[in-house]
This record gives sequence, structure tokens and C-alpha cells, in this order.
Amino acid sequence: MSVISAILNPKSVAVVGASNDPAKLTGRPIAFLQGQGYKGAIYPINPRYNEIAGLKSYASAADLPDVPDLALVLIGANRVIEAVRDLSAKGTKAAVVLASGFGESGDEGRALQAALHEAAGDMRILGPNTIGLVNLTDRIPLTASGAMEMTDFPVGKVALLSQSGGILGSLLSRAVARGIGFSKLVATGNEADLEVSDFLDALAEDDATQVVALYLETIRNVAAFRKAAVKVIAAGKSIVAYKVGRSESGARSAVSHTGALAGADEVYDALFAQLGVIRAQTFADLIDIPAALAQGRVMAGKRVAIVTSTGGAATVVADNVGLMGLDMPPPDVETSAKLLGLELKEAALDRNPIDVTLAGLRPDLFRSILRILAESPSYDAIAVVVGSSSIAQPDLVAQPVLESLSLTDKPILAYVSPDAPHIVRHLNSSGIPAFAAPESCASALAALVPVAPLQVSEARSAKAVDCSDIPAGSLNEADAKALFARFGVPVTREVVAATAEEAATAAQGFDGPVVIKILSNEILHKSEVGGVALNVAPADVGTTCAQMLEKVRAATTAKVDGFLVQEMVKGGVEMILGFNRDPQLGNYLLLGAGGVTTELYQDVAIRLLPISRAEARSMIDEVKAGALLKGFRGKPVADIDALVDTVLSFADMVETLGDRLEEAEINPVFVLPQGQGARAGDSLIVLR
Amino acid sequence: MSVISAILNPKSVAVVGASNDPAKLTGRPIAFLQGQGYKGAIYPINPRYNEIAGLKSYASAADLPDVPDLALVLIGANRVIEAVRDLSAKGTKAAVVLASGFGESGDEGRALQAALHEAAGDMRILGPNTIGLVNLTDRIPLTASGAMEMTDFPVGKVALLSQSGGILGSLLSRAVARGIGFSKLVATGNEADLEVSDFLDALAEDDATQVVALYLETIRNVAAFRKAAVKVIAAGKSIVAYKVGRSESGARSAVSHTGALAGADEVYDALFAQLGVIRAQTFADLIDIPAALAQGRVMAGKRVAIVTSTGGAATVVADNVGLMGLDMPPPDVETSAKLLGLELKEAALDRNPIDVTLAGLRPDLFRSILRILAESPSYDAIAVVVGSSSIAQPDLVAQPVLESLSLTDKPILAYVSPDAPHIVRHLNSSGIPAFAAPESCASALAALVPVAPLQVSEARSAKAVDCSDIPAGSLNEADAKALFARFGVPVTREVVAATAEEAATAAQGFDGPVVIKILSNEILHKSEVGGVALNVAPADVGTTCAQMLEKVRAATTAKVDGFLVQEMVKGGVEMILGFNRDPQLGNYLLLGAGGVTTELYQDVAIRLLPISRAEARSMIDEVKAGALLKGFRGKPVADIDALVDTVLSFADMVETLGDRLEEAEINPVFVLPQGQGARAGDSLIVLR
Repeated sequence: MSVISAILNPKSVAVVGASNDPAKLTGRPIAFLQGQGYKGAIYPINPRYNEIAGLKSYASAADLPDVPDLALVLIGANRVIEAVRDLSAKGTKAAVVLASGFGESGDEGRALQAALHEAAGDMRILGPNTIGLVNLTDRIPLTASGAMEMTDFPVGKVALLSQSGGILGSLLSRAVARGIGFSKLVATGNEADLEVSDFLDALAEDDATQVVALYLETIRNVAAFRKAAVKVIAAGKSIVAYKVGRSESGARSAVSHTGALAGADEVYDALFAQLGVIRAQTFADLIDIPAALAQGRVMAGKRVAIVTSTGGAATVVADNVGLMGLDMPPPDVETSAKLLGLELKEAALDRNPIDVTLAGLRPDLFRSILRILAESPSYDAIAVVVGSSSIAQPDLVAQPVLESLSLTDKPILAYVSPDAPHIVRHLNSSGIPAFAAPESCASALAALVPVAPLQVSEARSAKAVDCSDIPAGSLNEADAKALFARFGVPVTREVVAATAEEAATAAQGFDGPVVIKILSNEILHKSEVGGVALNVAPADVGTTCAQMLEKVRAATTAKVDGFLVQEMVKGGVEMILGFNRDPQLGNYLLLGAGGVTTELYQDVAIRLLPISRAEARSMIDEVKAGALLKGFRGKPVADIDALVDTVLSFADMVETLGDRLEEAEINPVFVLPQGQGARAGDSLIVLR
Repeated sequence: MSVISAILNPKSVAVVGASNDPAKLTGRPIAFLQGQGYKGAIYPINPRYNEIAGLKSYASAADLPDVPDLALVLIGANRVIEAVRDLSAKGTKAAVVLASGFGESGDEGRALQAALHEAAGDMRILGPNTIGLVNLTDRIPLTASGAMEMTDFPVGKVALLSQSGGILGSLLSRAVARGIGFSKLVATGNEADLEVSDFLDALAEDDATQVVALYLETIRNVAAFRKAAVKVIAAGKSIVAYKVGRSESGARSAVSHTGALAGADEVYDALFAQLGVIRAQTFADLIDIPAALAQGRVMAGKRVAIVTSTGGAATVVADNVGLMGLDMPPPDVETSAKLLGLELKEAALDRNPIDVTLAGLRPDLFRSILRILAESPSYDAIAVVVGSSSIAQPDLVAQPVLESLSLTDKPILAYVSPDAPHIVRHLNSSGIPAFAAPESCASALAALVPVAPLQVSEARSAKAVDCSDIPAGSLNEADAKALFARFGVPVTREVVAATAEEAATAAQGFDGPVVIKILSNEILHKSEVGGVALNVAPADVGTTCAQMLEKVRAATTAKVDGFLVQEMVKGGVEMILGFNRDPQLGNYLLLGAGGVTTELYQDVAIRLLPISRAEARSMIDEVKAGALLKGFRGKPVADIDALVDTVLSFADMVETLGDRLEEAEINPVFVLPQGQGARAGDSLIVLR
């Protein structure tokens, strides 16, 4: 039995610091457990009582008659460590620590958290700074959250893992109001030990869970998260994540909230895309998208039919559906003929939205319309707009929709136009995903179009190349390229020359004009000191070198290693390929357009390493500059395969050098026309 | 008395097609009027009754004892025209026509709508295809909408103008649920006669209205809209618009909904920015932002303090506030000292969000905290996060906030974290703008930072230049530039040469290399046919011209006028300046970066004409490429004033030529370093 099973489904629970007053935080957990009919043993631990809620109370963990699977620790930060040590000594599998005042509150708190972790020994910890968890599938509340005062929780297929207890409560109350059911709810708090990833991993095997919703302020162990996410998605389930830290204010706030130091937001975007995790763009999406996915249906294509009895609301939904990149074709001829055969007066049946006007209120007609659309080859999903006229009788909509669900595998969703929370709740709890915001309806539909994770399960293993001979420090361009070349990166043809004379001789070996560059590992921006000359005729190379040296000497005292005589590459598309390291998420590659566009337009694709060939290829499709490689304005198609090879070779180098690598960039990579390959132009490597 | 006053505040109302059954659409209007205690005369018109709702019923408008200010026409499309003719003959000021089946439903409907307009004569029409209007300030309902079955509408300072009746009902029910009050509600439907602009104009003078919320599917008369919007904003009021048509699906749907043919969405964006109209990005924002603006307070800067008793929700709000470009600085030393002086245990008082933990539940402490923040020089607004612990007693939050409102001019808003519609309603109706979505809270705050409209009230008048001598058709580059130059656009120095020899001679007059171009009004893309040579030494000009002519002749049969010998411009930033005409919104200019970036990144600023100098200047700040002009990566600062002059001269030309102009573009405009001016490079003009 895994520790996560022991936490979600404990056979026995100790409650440290329990009290007899169910109105107090300390009295709630036992009241909740008893209220939900928990069948396992409950052991209150509190030396000040003999009996709590009709149960014998124990003075300490040592006195318990049995080893509990789980302990809920309700006492304050100052007394937690001793209690945890006792529980661990008793052999308790895991403890949920509610107290705050740990890692989230400065240096002292961080020290206390380390001490807590140490005191736990082999026992696992959930928290501190958590409000606990609820297993709704099996009706086991293990929390002191006031949100559990509600008794009739809709049970469903969405598991929620949250790094904030307050957010868990907020989402629970919002979901309950919308009729969205949960399977498991876990607040992981400061994650001193167990993390979101541990629960994510376990949920891959939880039959009661179809979708995992994540509220994240950080990901502490990215490797574990990747592994768990791959497992969940391979099990045919979905993950939807809302991650704060999109702005600096949010990132700063997360640090003081749960001590979460996060990486750069765009690297999270890359991570989620690589894994196939859907990123919720709004807070509401974090429950609305899972509600749609929990239906267990996906769209075979991107075509949505909107059925409405109210034109304005359908127009707003259509606008948002279009913004999400989905299509809304009019009905095909046959479908339209079938709809017109129903002889609906005044209805617009040859367009989409399909405005059935008041027929939407006649269940027989509405049922026929839905059947025709369910059977139509033109649509992959149906969105039903519920107008104010249906508010009094929600089943006028719900019943026909439920019946049509049995006729088709297509997702059928509902948008409720007036303020009518009871209709949204009724529809959701009947199994029809329903939305109060047109934006949520559209993003939920978009989430139903399956997108393969960019990452393939088998990551490429990096090419093994010995680099132990390369010294620390900044490499000059020739040395940097030689190192890139070891991993298979194609580089410009070039010759190192110690003197102007050597350079002039070397230039004779090139057919046509060459590029001359000053060679120095101490000069990072060669053109700024006059250290680059393009398009130099071989006959002029000697003079050019002499003049260049003079200019460079005047501009800098940097050590000069000589000159680089390089082929002049023409007709290629210039891209930038670089490496960076996120303090939280690790090493990643960047690919973008060369020149000023990368800086001005932040048009850069990011992939965390390791990457597959498909992931490398997808970088080109992601950046807008990728269009330049695909035959832009009549230009020849570029050698995209060669660029992909270059990206993978670059990735191999980054993985091989590991922590030794400080900086690496090729700027530009010349991507030549198809079949002619790519060439690393200027290159930079700094090692430690 | 204006016709809009007669509509919003009629002294007498005829109801054509009224019935005795208040459960039916035809029975509702009189029931609503009587229910709200309407003091004017009500004249039912229906030949089938002698009495309706205790009032004498008339057979037709001709029989009325008095001329009504307003008529509500409830009968079907087939009988409307006769009724409207009768009402007009009687002298009725305006009629509200509810029937659908007009402009929104194909050619036949459009003809019927024209006939309706004609039958109305001097009488004004609201509709058809409207559900009418409600003057909540004076409690006068003039509608058949079921939404008016509610009786206790919160009256407030937000007027809502909607081109869809269904949306008006939806927004009304949502606003009521949130406790947001309206002053006037008008559904304009198909706008056969009166438009949103007519009501917008009148609301500038309505003391009961502080904010106008607009639901738009199109703007039919852009000049009237601009005039009305300028008037409303000059009166110190705000306009918030939700405009569908951001996606093609939405635009298509609007056509079948209210017959609305709209222009391109990005041109609407430009129009709103020029006028200072705030664009609601989500449907919820269309009531949430007005709710915040109705408080009548603005932020003096961009600094927000978030006060919370629950860390997670504050983190989510902070993240969204940051995304909107607002700042969240920590408290200054003095403010922090005052907060720490309150001796709050465990509270985080030196950061922002300011987490007061459970002190938020103690009114005395919470009041002190709010006072300190209200007085703090560090903040321009305060956002209070309401957690689940306050749900039972909303006044614990509301009372202290209301008291602090009297201490400061700063806006104070609330975000409610759990699902608690009653708290949102309570706060809003108490005068505290309150939000259930963190995104709405953030966009409302952003809307409180005043942004001056780009447009100044006095538009520049275009320079009068006679162009009657210019023939229709496409101009060659030299003629196009000559026409631009008449309006003051600076152009490259150039000479037209009929032959290669003339060109060679002309080139002697330039110091240094020149550009040679083929001259033809039939060749639009000169470089594609080999018709451009850069950097030609004067000595080579003759040969270059001869070779060019050969190449061009091989590529095209187009008529050639000769050669253009042009100065070679170096060291400028290349921009594109162009003109376009939106079928709905009219003439506009585009400014963007030259080269591929404009196409790849759609980095273009748009301004509808006429424009002020400030509007022209703002185009440079709006495009990312503007950075290239401001000393990018150590390059010299460009002559931005000269570019602004060029934009204004271009605008003068567009306005002078009016409908004669089909195409106009300068690509590139070379913007030289400061003090050196700008030069139109290649230029294109097509006239009709």
C-alpha cells in the first residue's frame, strides 16, 4: 500500500490537538469524519481530555492502541515538531500538518520547516500550512476547512490538487455552486515533503478520477512532475493547471504565501505544452474546463454547432468559439434539409448558430433538432445556448440533451445566458457541462480538441562525446564551433590565422569573397569593436586584417588570438538558437528569428530538455519566424530538417556538458534552401 | 424636448396591439407601466377590446384623444407598417417596434425595413427587432421583456445600450444578481432609424448616468458615434464597450442576428482608443468595469494595495493585477511602521498583498488597517480580498470599507474569493464595487487609471491642395511622390530620365552612388521584374539602365516610362506608412515596421481619420517597431518629429482626395537620425 493510498484512504486516523467543540477548527475534523460515516478507527490525541466526540482521547501518540495510517496534526507551529516525532516513533505512515509559520515566513520559518522534515524521519508529511484533504469518492474528509460544513457535495471525476488551502476552499465552493463534482481534494501547502507530483502520480491509477485540476504556485521537483504527468496522460486522463506567477506581482506574492520560488512563466508554458497539460487562462477555467473534460468525450475535429433560441447570446458564444480557433461551419445540405423538414417557423436553420427561436421550448422539436445535429457529419460538438425563456423549466433543455447524449459520442455542452446558477447546477449535475461565461464555454470546447503532448514517452538519449579536454571559461568563436561540431552541429567553413599574412593565404582557398573576424575569447561583441568585415575579396584580406587589428586595439585591451577567415554564407534564413537555465525548471533551448525581431517581438520557442525530434520540429511551427523557412513571399523553402538536426545536436551538447555549461548560443544559424543544410554562423560558449 | 427625451421620459404612451393578459407578451407593457406607477397617460390600441387593464382601448391611432409622445408597437411584422403610418399621421414623436423579421432576415426583410422607415415619415423609430427600453431612474418600463417581471431593480448610475434585446436581458439579470444598478436600459435592435449613437449623445446630459455600457455588433454611423462619444467623455463620464466580431464566426453570426455588417475588429480597437472608450475584453467586464467606474473615483497613479485575510486568493488577484500593468509596491517605511504598530500577530505587514490574517475579522483592527492604507502615499487604490471566514457576516467587511471611503478619494474595491453571490450583491449595493472573478477585479482596477483619449476635440483641418489635374489610375513612382510632395511629404531626391543616356547624365548630379529604378505605372512590384538596382556608381548608371531594361522587357509587356535616378539613402530606420478604407468605419492610416516584420507580427498602428498630431505621435509609441526609432541597441535616435509630420501630410492627402483614393502607401519611409528628417522611398498611389 503506497503512502498516498494511506493518506487518501486511511484505515485509521489520529487527530492530534482535537477538541470537543465542533464549531472550532480543532473540533471539526472528527465531526466531519463522523458526519460522513467514516468506518475506520479515529484516535483523538489531547492530554486535556479523556473523551472527545464519544471517543477515548489519548495523551500522546505513544499511548495509542494501534499504529494509525494517518495523523491529522492540528496544533500550532511551536508544538508540532514534538508531536511529529512521537507519531513517527509510533510508526505512523503519514501526518498532515496544518500549522502555518514555516517556509512561507522568512528564515526562521524555513529552519523550523527543515526541523519538521527531520523530525518526521520515515513518516511522510503533507504540509505544513495545509488545510488537509478530502476523499469524496469514499467520503473521507481529512481537513479542518470550514468549506466541509456543507454536507451534499456533488461527487464527480475531477481531482483537485492545490498548493493553497484557501484556493481549494474557494474552488470547492464555486464548483459546488455550479454542480461540478470532485473525486479527491488535496491541499499540499508548503510541500515540505509530499508534493503535488506525488498525488498526481497516484491519481493516474485512481479509477474515480478522469481529470486532475492543479492550482500551482511553483513546481518544486520538475522531474517528478514530468514523470507523473506523463503517467496520468498515458492513462487517458487530462490535466488542467492554473499557475500563478504570470506577472511579477503574482510571483512575489506566491513567495510570501507558500514560500514558492517559481521559474519564468514562459518556461512553465513550454513545460505544460511539452507534457500535454492544459493551462487554464482564467481562474474559472480551472473548474470549467475539467467539468467539460469529465464528461469523457473529445471532439474528432474542430467544428462546433451552436443551437440557440436567443440570437445575441449565440453571437457572443460564436465570437468566443472563433477566437479559440474552432470552426463553426453552416449545416451541410443534407443536415439543413432535415432541419427545414421540421417546418420551424421563423427559424434560421441554414446557418450556424442555428437559431431555432421558440422551438427550443418545445421538447419534441428540440429533441429532433439535437438528433439531427448529433447525426450530422458536419459537427464534432454541439453547444446549446439556454435563454431566459427556459429558466422556469430547466428540464425542457436538460431532458432532450441527455437523450441525445445517448445517441452520439460527440460532446454536448450548454451555455446559460441569463444569471441562473440553479440551471447551471442542474445541467452540470445531470452530466451536461454547463457554463455561465461565454469565454469558459469556448475554452472548454477548445480543451476537448485532443492535442498530442509534444513530448514522446521515449526521450532521446544524448550523444556521448567526451568534453573533459575543454577548459573552463569563454571560448573564442573557432573553439566554440569546434565544440559544437563534435556534437554534429554544422558550422561555416573557416580557417584560423595567427597573422594577417596567414589570413591572406588562407583566403585563397575559398572561392569568392570571405568574412574576416577578429578571434578572441575576451571579445563577446566583435562588431562593436570593429572586429567583423563581411564580403571581403581574397585579394583584400591582408589589408583588411591589418586595419581591423588596428581598430580593435584602439577599442579594447582584450587578448587577440588572431583572425578567423570564414566562408561568406548567402541566401540563408537567419535564426538564433540558444540555451538557458531556469533556476526552478532546469535547462531549456530557445529558437527564434535572428536580428532585432527576437528582442522586439519575443518571438521565441522554448523547450525544456530533454527533447524529442518532434519537440524540436514543433519549435519551428511555434515561432512566427518559422514562416520565413517555409517559402515566405516566394522565397525558396529552407532546409528545415537540417535545422532540426542542429537543434538536436545543440541539445546533446547541453545535456552532455550539464552544469559545466554557463552560456551557449548560435547567432545566427544560417538555414539554407532545402537540401543545402544549415551552418552555425557566430557561436558562443562559456563553460565553468 | 428632444426625441430621445420623449422616448426615455414620455408624457403619454400608446400601446399598439395591447392585450388584457399580463402573462402574454402583449399584456406585459401596460402591466409593467402600471406596476411601476407610471404617471403619464396610457392609450391601449386594439380594435378587439373596449377596455384593457382598466383603460379605454382605441381601434386605431387616429381615434386617440391626444397625441402620444411614444408608441410601443407590439404587433407582428406583417401589420406593423400600417400601424406606424397611422401613428405618424397622428403626430406621435416616436415608435418602438418590437417585431422581428426585418433587416436581419434576408432581402425580403430588408425591403420591409425600408418600407417601415418610409411609413414612419417624421416620426422616429426605435427598432425593429427590439425589446424596448427601461428608464430605471424614473421607473418607466417601456418593454415587453420578461426580465422586467422582477420588481426590485437596483437603480444606479450605469446606462446600458444594447443592439440585442436578449443580451440586454442577460446583462440585466446578471447585474441584478451582483447588485449593480442601472439608470437607463435601451435595446436598439436593427436600428432602422435611431441608433446607439443617438442615445449615447443624450446620455451625456443625463445626470443620473455616470457610465455608459455598450453591447455592439456594429456601428452604423461612425461620425455620429464619434461625436456622441466625445461629448459623453467631455462630460466626465465613461464609456465601456463590448463589441462582437473579434472572430469571423462572431462577425458572421452578428449579420444573421441584427443584420449588422461590421468593419474589421482592429479598426474598432483603434476607434475606441482614439475616443477613450474602454473595450471590455470579456462579457462579464461589460458590467463589472462599469460597476467600478460608477463609484466615480479614479486612481491618481498605478499603485494598488491588496489587503487580505487569505493568502491564496490575494496571490491570484496580485497576479492578475500585475498582468494588467498595474504596480503593487510594498508599503513605504512609515506605512509599514503604522501597520506594525497595530501589533497583529502572524500578519505580513511589510509586503503587498498585505496579509492581515484573522485581523480581517475584527472590525476595529480592519478599520485601522484600511485607514492607514487610505492615508498612505504609497497607494492609489485598495483592493480588499474577502475570504470564506467573512461570509457569514458580510458587514464585518462592508462597514469598515464604507467608513474608509469617507476618508479618502481613492477607489476601494473588493474581490470575493469563495462562491458567495449574496456578499457580492451586498457590497455592490452598498457602494463598494465587488467582483467574483480575479480577472474582472484586475481589469476594473486598470479601467480606473485615467487614459486620455488619443483624439483631441479640435481635429486638424486638412491642408487644401488642388488635385483635380491628377488623372485616374495608377501613378508611377515619380508621379506618386510628386503628389505626396504637394502635401508636404518629404521625398528622396530624384530625377526622371527617359533613356539610359539621360539617366547617366543625371547621375552625375548626385554625389556618390545612386539607386536606379524602372519607371512605369503598370509595374507595381519593380524588384520582381529586375527593375531596381541599389548602390550604383554614377559611372555604371548607363550600363545598369540598359541591362535593367532588357531584364524588364523579358519579364513583362508593361509600358515603361523611363528610369528614376534616386539618391541612395543610408542609415535610416525603414517604416511603412499606408492607407486603407474600412467599409463600415471609413478611412484610416497604418504605420508599421518595414520589411517582413509587419506581415509576420502584425505590428501595425491604426488610426481612423481625421487625426490630431498627438494621435499621429501615439502610433509610434504603439508599435513595437517604434523602439527602433528611439535609440535601439546604441543606434542614433531617429527624427520622430519628421515622421509625425510625414504621417500628418499623408493624412491630409487622404482626406483631400477622399473617395478618389483607392490605394496609397509609402514603403519604406526612411526615418533618418534626429534633425535629418525623413524621406519617402518607394511610393504607390492609385486614384479613381
